[in-house]
Amino acid sequence: MIALQDQEKTLKEAINALHHRTFFSYFPENPSPDVYGPEADAKGREKFNNLLGQRYKELKQAEPEAWVGQEESPYTQEALGIKYPYFSPATLVNNAQEAFHQWRKVPADTRVTVLLDSLSGLQNRFFELAYATMHTTGQAFMMAFQASGPHAADRALEAIATGYEELNRFPEEADWEKPMGKYNLKLQKSWRAVPKGVALAIGCSTFPTWNTVPGMFASLVTGNPVIVKPHPKSVLPMALVVAEVQQALINHNLNPLICQLAADPDDRLITQELAEHLAVKVIDYTGSTAFGNYLESLPGKIVFTEKAGVNSVILESVVDLDKVMQNLAFSISLYSGQMCTAPQNFFIPATGINVNGEQVPYEQVVQKFADAVSSLINNPKVGPHVLGAIQNPGTVARVQAIEKMPGKPILTTCDVANPQFAQARLCSPVIYEVAAADKEVYNRELFGPIALVIKTHNTQQSIALAKEMALNHGAISCGAYTTNPELKEQIKDEMSLSGTPVSFNLTGNIYLNQHASFSDFHVTGGNPAGNASFTNPEFVVKRFTWVGFRELVSE
Amino acid sequence: MIALQDQEKTLKEAINALHHRTFFSYFPENPSPDVYGPEADAKGREKFNNLLGQRYKELKQAEPEAWVGQEESPYTQEALGIKYPYFSPATLVNNAQEAFHQWRKVPADTRVTVLLDSLSGLQNRFFELAYATMHTTGQAFMMAFQASGPHAADRALEAIATGYEELNRFPEEADWEKPMGKYNLKLQKSWRAVPKGVALAIGCSTFPTWNTVPGMFASLVTGNPVIVKPHPKSVLPMALVVAEVQQALINHNLNPLICQLAADPDDRLITQELAEHLAVKVIDYTGSTAFGNYLESLPGKIVFTEKAGVNSVILESVVDLDKVMQNLAFSISLYSGQMCTAPQNFFIPATGINVNGEQVPYEQVVQKFADAVSSLINNPKVGPHVLGAIQNPGTVARVQAIEKMPGKPILTTCDVANPQFAQARLCSPVIYEVAAADKEVYNRELFGPIALVIKTHNTQQSIALAKEMALNHGAISCGAYTTNPELKEQIKDEMSLSGTPVSFNLTGNIYLNQHASFSDFHVTGGNPAGNASFTNPEFVVKRFTWVGFRELVSE
Repeated sequence: MIALQDQEKTLKEAINALHHRTFFSYFPENPSPDVYGPEADAKGREKFNNLLGQRYKELKQAEPEAWVGQEESPYTQEALGIKYPYFSPATLVNNAQEAFHQWRKVPADTRVTVLLDSLSGLQNRFFELAYATMHTTGQAFMMAFQASGPHAADRALEAIATGYEELNRFPEEADWEKPMGKYNLKLQKSWRAVPKGVALAIGCSTFPTWNTVPGMFASLVTGNPVIVKPHPKSVLPMALVVAEVQQALINHNLNPLICQLAADPDDRLITQELAEHLAVKVIDYTGSTAFGNYLESLPGKIVFTEKAGVNSVILESVVDLDKVMQNLAFSISLYSGQMCTAPQNFFIPATGINVNGEQVPYEQVVQKFADAVSSLINNPKVGPHVLGAIQNPGTVARVQAIEKMPGKPILTTCDVANPQFAQARLCSPVIYEVAAADKEVYNRELFGPIALVIKTHNTQQSIALAKEMALNHGAISCGAYTTNPELKEQIKDEMSLSGTPVSFNLTGNIYLNQHASFSDFHVTGGNPAGNASFTNPEFVVKRFTWVGFRELVSE
Repeated sequence: MIALQDQEKTLKEAINALHHRTFFSYFPENPSPDVYGPEADAKGREKFNNLLGQRYKELKQAEPEAWVGQEESPYTQEALGIKYPYFSPATLVNNAQEAFHQWRKVPADTRVTVLLDSLSGLQNRFFELAYATMHTTGQAFMMAFQASGPHAADRALEAIATGYEELNRFPEEADWEKPMGKYNLKLQKSWRAVPKGVALAIGCSTFPTWNTVPGMFASLVTGNPVIVKPHPKSVLPMALVVAEVQQALINHNLNPLICQLAADPDDRLITQELAEHLAVKVIDYTGSTAFGNYLESLPGKIVFTEKAGVNSVILESVVDLDKVMQNLAFSISLYSGQMCTAPQNFFIPATGINVNGEQVPYEQVVQKFADAVSSLINNPKVGPHVLGAIQNPGTVARVQAIEKMPGKPILTTCDVANPQFAQARLCSPVIYEVAAADKEVYNRELFGPIALVIKTHNTQQSIALAKEMALNHGAISCGAYTTNPELKEQIKDEMSLSGTPVSFNLTGNIYLNQHASFSDFHVTGGNPAGNASFTNPEFVVKRFTWVGFRELVSE
């Protein structure tokens, strides 16, 4: 067992990392036997297989009102058959309200210990979690392991560290003494960080843990009980997380209902009812813009959202065009573009781009892009492990529909196969050329493996359009390729005004899709792609209220 | 001239004070000639008198579209006759948008210098500001001096310090180096705190500077240009503040329109149009609950509010009943109850309260309260200086209307006089007894000198009602008198859940109405009395966005 041996040290290192924003990771991302033990993979797979077709009984919640579950594997397109306990929103909220009064009185240090214990427990199940993620989201094994396991756990640790630091930002007590001339006026003062109340964490189907644990752990560390509402198509990964949190709570003699799983069937969805419940004070959400906007509009709630965005790549000048195109091909192919950080709109000037001093025509640039994608996905040793499978059949339909829009196909979707899963739901990336004037085509997120090449008059128009898209429709990432320092500064300045982070000149094994815990803020909160950011101070301070008390000190 | 000699030291001390929350004040609150010079008072009064009946020409704004002004002195009930420049919302917003691009690029250190310079300039005008405040709000001179001058300037300094600290919470740059096994992946990263954009600070008529400068300076220090929209009945105090900020901007060769005054006439109010303008991103507001709720509901805005609250006093056991009643009498009489922190609902058990071991009957407690008020306001050397004058005629009407409500008068309003101003608009405090069951009488703010005594079954009911009022109708302060430690802890716990600070056992020269900069958070943001708090981290971090950039470091 790889445990959080020295919790105080880990917490200190994590807080330190937050402020230096240099590389930091607690949980090893390499699923190698050298790191996790020779049997970890086989055991994890076996545990996952044993859950299939069964009632999930690990949760410390009471006898449920029903057993529900409709997950299916994008790799087999068959039902997992796992049934989860269903409770009505009223029951869940009542449980949480009762648990609140215990949890809010637990000192912050103890809360941290409980939560780090739960991550330690989860770490022992990273392989089980990987298979759970793979067979609900369609992620390839490596991504499923890393994103749902170590990377998510690091994001959770980041939220714990940020929350803990903010809870200790002000003293518990102070002696206040005001000179009044002839005497000093003395007050004994104290402050409490009072949690807001019942929290709700609403997950998505593509990154069920990575996107859910930051809000969940931020709420928990600040003293709020959490109802975890997973996406009905990807329940198991969060069920494992909740089970570990509940076990850690029990180990500390605390009410496990401080953290509950709220599974629901497709035909009796309870998210809206939970969100609108008067006792629910804090909501974290990852998902569609429409539902996110609805949640943000609910009065009297603290709402954190990550919604859809339109991510751009601005191409102007590069040193090595092949390397750039390989990098971008990987970016759009990774998990078949089912990432909120995947680039969609590629702005390329009609005059082409400068490659190491020479101008390469537009058509040639676009062709190189298409070739790089083809070459990647048709490499049987690489393609399947990059593409993964398609989570939602709607994504395949969206890719097919692209050809009905104004523009020109550059690369059409082709047959791809997964050697391990003959029935996998697959869809190779498409590249489609759109005129800069046809904004209605590219001014929204086309979730999935869809890259739009937009021919612009010049780079100034590319920048203006990328900024406009981000400002009006949101953006979570942006790539820019330029060797010109003035242009780089201009791109930073313009994109910063649209609240969009920019990755410059990435080639090799680093992609604009990737956001590292403790260093990269994920989503800025500064454009329509979401109002929250993993993990800035705002993400935690809104979850509690500073309340002060004072008493006259008699002489 | 008392200048901010050592700005770096002041800023460091201010940040330090924020975190220790011990007594700290930069600006002396004593308007004595020893502190401010022998002629400061006379000169300030003269400057104020010279402004009367004139166009206010000190602002560095262009030729206005009109000259407007309808202030009148609650002491003379005559118009001040000062006319302020009027600009349309479109002009104001255009100016601010243009100024934004200069101000956002000014380094945070320089922004702090400019803002501290403006406070230094304002300090030279504290007496002029005191008369301006006195004759627009009705505050007595001492309060007008302290609240609008040193206390407001300390609150502004607090906002500057909090903002500066948060802007420096994360590094400007970092080298990120991830071990990849055979090599290290290196990224050069940088972050910018990007201001949200045009800010609007909406003032109230009773504390025109104290309530406006925190949001205004918080927006400015974080790089947002501010349009200051004063209440039409109390423009001059904020005109003086804006003039000093504009002068400091000019002294640093910056566009004075980074901070603009937006005066409007009663018949052409522009607050709503400004608030709804798409370019306005941040709004600070002090005023009515209805308008505050409307502002909070505006989509796409960061809104900070202080609205109305219902403040309670819970009486259970005391050591010296006379001292307690003198303290409470002062609390309700100070500025004739026109304070958001003034207590309104006094919960007293029907069985009376324990005084040093002996039970004093309810009737006797209430009578002592009434006697303490009468004695205070009828003392000609004290009363007028405590009561001040009534800002709004509606407040007098509200006091008179109280007798039409269910309940029993304990102390009715009486004739009070101000020896200095024969025409002052005055109204002495009333005390009215209400049954605990008649919640519709006491479940809202009755702004002005109105104290409601609510006879409860016992202290448990008192606590429950005080908490209920705060939770449902908001509260900004709470007083509690108990010598019982368990009860004290219970009151802390229950009131903390309603986001209400509690002052225990205050007697002598400290009142529950008073909130000290750098120590007491003013309004918690945790109940319907407002969503903002002077000055917690949330109050500043929402005014900017962290945006990151990264670039591959080639080997």
